[in-house]
Amino acid sequence: MKIHKAVITAAGRRQRTLPLQTLIDRDGVEKSVLTILIEEVLAAGIDEIGVVVRPGDEQAYAQVAGGHVRRLHFVPQREPLGHGHAVYCAQEFVGRDPFLHLVGDHLYVSHGDQRCAQALVAMAESEACAISAVQATRESLLPYYGAVGGRRVPGAPALYEVDTVIEKPTPTQAEQHLIVPGLRAGYYLCFFGMHVLTPSVMNILGAQIAAGAAGDHPERGYTLSAALVELAHREKYLALEQAGARYDVGVKYGLLTAQMALALTGDDREEVLARLLELLVQREGMRR
Amino acid sequence: MKIHKAVITAAGRRQRTLPLQTLIDRDGVEKSVLTILIEEVLAAGIDEIGVVVRPGDEQAYAQVAGGHVRRLHFVPQREPLGHGHAVYCAQEFVGRDPFLHLVGDHLYVSHGDQRCAQALVAMAESEACAISAVQATRESLLPYYGAVGGRRVPGAPALYEVDTVIEKPTPTQAEQHLIVPGLRAGYYLCFFGMHVLTPSVMNILGAQIAAGAAGDHPERGYTLSAALVELAHREKYLALEQAGARYDVGVKYGLLTAQMALALTGDDREEVLARLLELLVQREGMRR
Repeated sequence: MKIHKAVITAAGRRQRTLPLQTLIDRDGVEKSVLTILIEEVLAAGIDEIGVVVRPGDEQAYAQVAGGHVRRLHFVPQREPLGHGHAVYCAQEFVGRDPFLHLVGDHLYVSHGDQRCAQALVAMAESEACAISAVQATRESLLPYYGAVGGRRVPGAPALYEVDTVIEKPTPTQAEQHLIVPGLRAGYYLCFFGMHVLTPSVMNILGAQIAAGAAGDHPERGYTLSAALVELAHREKYLALEQAGARYDVGVKYGLLTAQMALALTGDDREEVLARLLELLVQREGMRR
Repeated sequence: MKIHKAVITAAGRRQRTLPLQTLIDRDGVEKSVLTILIEEVLAAGIDEIGVVVRPGDEQAYAQVAGGHVRRLHFVPQREPLGHGHAVYCAQEFVGRDPFLHLVGDHLYVSHGDQRCAQALVAMAESEACAISAVQATRESLLPYYGAVGGRRVPGAPALYEVDTVIEKPTPTQAEQHLIVPGLRAGYYLCFFGMHVLTPSVMNILGAQIAAGAAGDHPERGYTLSAALVELAHREKYLALEQAGARYDVGVKYGLLTAQMALALTGDDREEVLARLLELLVQREGMRR
């Protein structure tokens, strides 16, 4: 299996302007969030990118994509019917191919030289199946994420076979369905915001949307998690624990935190630490 | 003298997108840089604001101004002919009135409850003259600022009578013309990016532009400093030392620094410090 397409969803009400924001990447270069995401995708060896946007946002996105704009295929999501629906909007672009999927309001900062998407795509290609990036996450954070239940793949410490998926589970649901043997107590495998999906996911989403089956929480619209539950029943579906960190730039101070994380991992680490220290000293001086 | 108009210049090549960026203000609310500047102006008792933009940028600015949009008068600067020229573009808007002037790529963080613009406008109204906010600045930073020479107004520790102005002076120029008795050795009074100007400044700018007199550094276009030199010869012109800090959001990590400064001075101080500490610990863990 070779992955050569990616889908970035950015049509959500809170998501729309986030990819347009400017940050300084780890290489010290100022870029839009969209460009940082595009470069994450390119580093994984993928160069055809579908971007799901609210109609009318195409031009603003094209402007901040710089030289990468020719790799982008804009796909409109005409109604805000949920994350699963947004992915499904890219169905024609995806066709019969597997694809990498990122959400447009997260930034991913890997630990080592290999980027998060690169590691995920390499694993998907070698296992020839759908695979979601996950991270062991404290129970208290379950309300913010989708989570998977399953069991470790023997001999592969970071790899799990997924049995089930629950979107934003309650602690009781998590305890009953999502305990993964070998994880620290009180920790669950939550989505990292990055998946490699097979065309079956598009078929499942299509059927769920046609049936108007918006799942247990219709106010969330068609979730991707509802389709992934079904996928786990149909196909081999894995989860790869990521060592990096993801930053939701859509939450309060999300951009600040992402910028600090990029700066503290990157080439400008010393400069930014010095500036921060200077600022703290200055501010403390003012408080006296 | 009562000030009821303000002019924000934001048409510079590097400035154009800065007012559109989103930051979280000291009150914990997410706002565009433009909105933060508008609120600085409103806090000074001013509610008519001319915004000098590159033609075509009006709509993007209006979008991020929120409820303040009805206070804005957009003024196009059709050619990038310098800071002085940008101010002059607002000539019709200003008419025969004195006005507060801010640059669109700086954020101002005062020490106490009184905001920087508020203090400056109050002083201009009580002294009934033009007045520039300044800050004692290390000699090494002279290449980035305009600077004034003059002498302390007796009995008013933060107030100076301005004799001369030099844009981005060399150390030799500064030593010869800008030493202000009573300042620490090696420090000069540099512009803070905020002025109250009288209509005379518009007359001077108009004459300089009509004469094509772009000053000593024609590559910078018509500077505001060149007009202020002339103003100092014609009228009472003061400088007020500001206790707050200004952040140039146009430099590398400028937005990050401004955001940290706002957060560390504001309501969310403890939360942001905790998050920062967590990030540092996490990053240090990764480096091992």
